[in-house]
Amino acid sequence: MDKERLVQKSCNEFVNLLSSKAAVPGGGGAAALVGGIGTALAGMVCNLTVGKKKYAQYEDDVKRILKRAEDLQKDLLDMVDEDAENFLPLSKAYGMPANTEEEKKEKEKVMQQALKKACEVPIKIVETCYEAIKLHQGLVDKGSRLAISDVGVGVQCLKSALISGQLNVIININMIKDEEYVNRVKEKTEKLVNEGSKIADEVYVKVEKILSK
Amino acid sequence: MDKERLVQKSCNEFVNLLSSKAAVPGGGGAAALVGGIGTALAGMVCNLTVGKKKYAQYEDDVKRILKRAEDLQKDLLDMVDEDAENFLPLSKAYGMPANTEEEKKEKEKVMQQALKKACEVPIKIVETCYEAIKLHQGLVDKGSRLAISDVGVGVQCLKSALISGQLNVIININMIKDEEYVNRVKEKTEKLVNEGSKIADEVYVKVEKILSK
Repeated sequence: MDKERLVQKSCNEFVNLLSSKAAVPGGGGAAALVGGIGTALAGMVCNLTVGKKKYAQYEDDVKRILKRAEDLQKDLLDMVDEDAENFLPLSKAYGMPANTEEEKKEKEKVMQQALKKACEVPIKIVETCYEAIKLHQGLVDKGSRLAISDVGVGVQCLKSALISGQLNVIININMIKDEEYVNRVKEKTEKLVNEGSKIADEVYVKVEKILSK
Repeated sequence: MDKERLVQKSCNEFVNLLSSKAAVPGGGGAAALVGGIGTALAGMVCNLTVGKKKYAQYEDDVKRILKRAEDLQKDLLDMVDEDAENFLPLSKAYGMPANTEEEKKEKEKVMQQALKKACEVPIKIVETCYEAIKLHQGLVDKGSRLAISDVGVGVQCLKSALISGQLNVIININMIKDEEYVNRVKEKTEKLVNEGSKIADEVYVKVEKILSK
């Protein structure tokens, strides 16, 4: 059973499957994995900092960041498969007959539910990548200088995953008719994407400055 | 032997290893994998476009893009392990003794060679991600509209891999003393990163516009 999970596939296999016309993994799963990679880089920086005399004053903070990074990384990796599972009802709904008025009504009803289901993981990707970007914000000041480029790579990955999550929200809510839901989700994700991108850019500029010294 | 390759590890294992203090994979390997993911999304868009009547006029172009995407994707996945192999000499050089003047001289000589070796893959990541971004530039106009969000996710991943590749060039050339080499590499990668980022942003804006219609 576990062998069937997308994250249990080799990196090679996953990427090859992504490039095929198979329904999953899609852009959402790709975003979750890239977010997981960006979060793992925060974990790496913590692991290269903890125990070093030079950073002893930040030891407790860095340990806290590490714990949080481990949790977020696990969440993002789980989302790779969760996104694939949540896509199935939508895929099925598309195939429903719509010949009679009654069939059309039923199909539309099922579609609307399936679209909201398909939105769930992309929303979580946005929320989680935002949190992970804030971990790098702490590490750019408190992490080992020897791993500073990994903070830079980490925020780049997370920013792209954040925006990619949002894109996968948009393709679904574009077809959702529940205006209250659409507005609420749009507002929430836009705010996180704007703030998260801004923080990621600030962290990246700091990394560049440190590297140009 | 092949089992030892990083890209043969499961996505889960790779990400967990990335977050550890193990010397590899590092930021360079992460960048190569994220580039591979972004390139695979170009392949996916092609595979969802080829054979569709609506896009028959672009069939030859899309098939050409697909062939190129498959090649670049394979190259980027190979770079994950190549980057790890190229880091070994540098890792060894750091451990060389430097007690006598002679030892210092020898260490410095070996270090300088190892630094150039460690630069090789990051430079290739920048070059390859630039090429892959240009594939998405073609697909935003010629690819199936049903997969337009995947073009958006693709350029986001590739832009972050492009910049991450450059960061991994910078951390090495910062210590290289061969000025002619440093200037040449800096100039080349900066040009590709600037142009590639610009194209990626333009493609993304087009995707956003199509999705907001």
